[in-house]
Amino acid sequence: MDSRAPGRPKVVADSADKRDTILRSARELFSDRGFDRTTMRAIAARAGVDPALIHHYFGNKNALLVAALQPEVDAKTVFSGITPETDAPGEIFVRRVLEFWETNPQQRARAIALLRVAVTHDEIAMRVRDFFLGLVQRALGGVVRRDHQDERYALVVSQTAGLAISKYILLLPDVANAPIDILAQRVGPNIDNYLFRDFDE
Amino acid sequence: MDSRAPGRPKVVADSADKRDTILRSARELFSDRGFDRTTMRAIAARAGVDPALIHHYFGNKNALLVAALQPEVDAKTVFSGITPETDAPGEIFVRRVLEFWETNPQQRARAIALLRVAVTHDEIAMRVRDFFLGLVQRALGGVVRRDHQDERYALVVSQTAGLAISKYILLLPDVANAPIDILAQRVGPNIDNYLFRDFDE
Repeated sequence: MDSRAPGRPKVVADSADKRDTILRSARELFSDRGFDRTTMRAIAARAGVDPALIHHYFGNKNALLVAALQPEVDAKTVFSGITPETDAPGEIFVRRVLEFWETNPQQRARAIALLRVAVTHDEIAMRVRDFFLGLVQRALGGVVRRDHQDERYALVVSQTAGLAISKYILLLPDVANAPIDILAQRVGPNIDNYLFRDFDE
Repeated sequence: MDSRAPGRPKVVADSADKRDTILRSARELFSDRGFDRTTMRAIAARAGVDPALIHHYFGNKNALLVAALQPEVDAKTVFSGITPETDAPGEIFVRRVLEFWETNPQQRARAIALLRVAVTHDEIAMRVRDFFLGLVQRALGGVVRRDHQDERYALVVSQTAGLAISKYILLLPDVANAPIDILAQRVGPNIDNYLFRDFDE
């Protein structure tokens, strides 16, 4: 049975398909040639669409890259169940982040690619920063204490980005090879510190 | 008065001069053209030396880059006076790192350049990782507790690299604009956690 309702115009399904095709083509080309050597024209050609359509859906190449490298799973799913009753939310947060990357090699590759491009392209850095902040906010907004919230989120991002870079890019042996449980135990209490410590004492 | 002793062969001073000239030329070209578009030949031409001499002094381009981007000041100087009697060494460590970068814009630019190149070049990442680990070890080796030392250093690197990236590359507002004292107060206790917390409890 066709999943589209009889009266629903075909163009809607088509445009979602095209959007996906563009994202997939962008991912393939970014991965093959690197970000700088990938043109919007080449992505359009591979996706079989007009370049104007890519601009229409995504704006510029930076925005397309960030959209293409977003995780496929919603943060709410990855971090579900961190509530005010949760004991040691920092430990659970670190474990969930690392489990997500370790069990989804493709998602991990995207996150690493995103970090790499962010570090060398200022406009992308700003988008990645906002994406990370939003993610931490969705994950821990239910438990963080009320004062200094933006600062607390920013500090959690600083440790989480540093952990990802140490583990997957700098390959610090004691971080790269450590089991997830150990890393969650080591880093988690420091995330809790950022979430709950009295900053005005 | 000539600072060279009368009998000392001129070639020694010359070779130190040439080494410095090569490093300076490398820095200028890396900064102008980026790492990937800078050739050893171009560095040799700007320095007025034979390319073979660069290979002789530094090995390959990756090694030359890391040498060119090393801080000019020794870690022992930047972190002097962190002893077992120091109260809150993590806070002092964070303050010294940030003060060093804030008062030496050129050194800060080098550190950022080093991070940027490390994140996109695996062999450089390994050299930068070893450089960071050595630095943390020289800074905090006198105070860190004896068990799990390599792990503790690695975790300190993870937070410090994350702080640098958040402040200077991702420009997280609450980190980028925070006064040094505030960041030292926020992050320092977590560095202390990595240095001293009981990891086997």
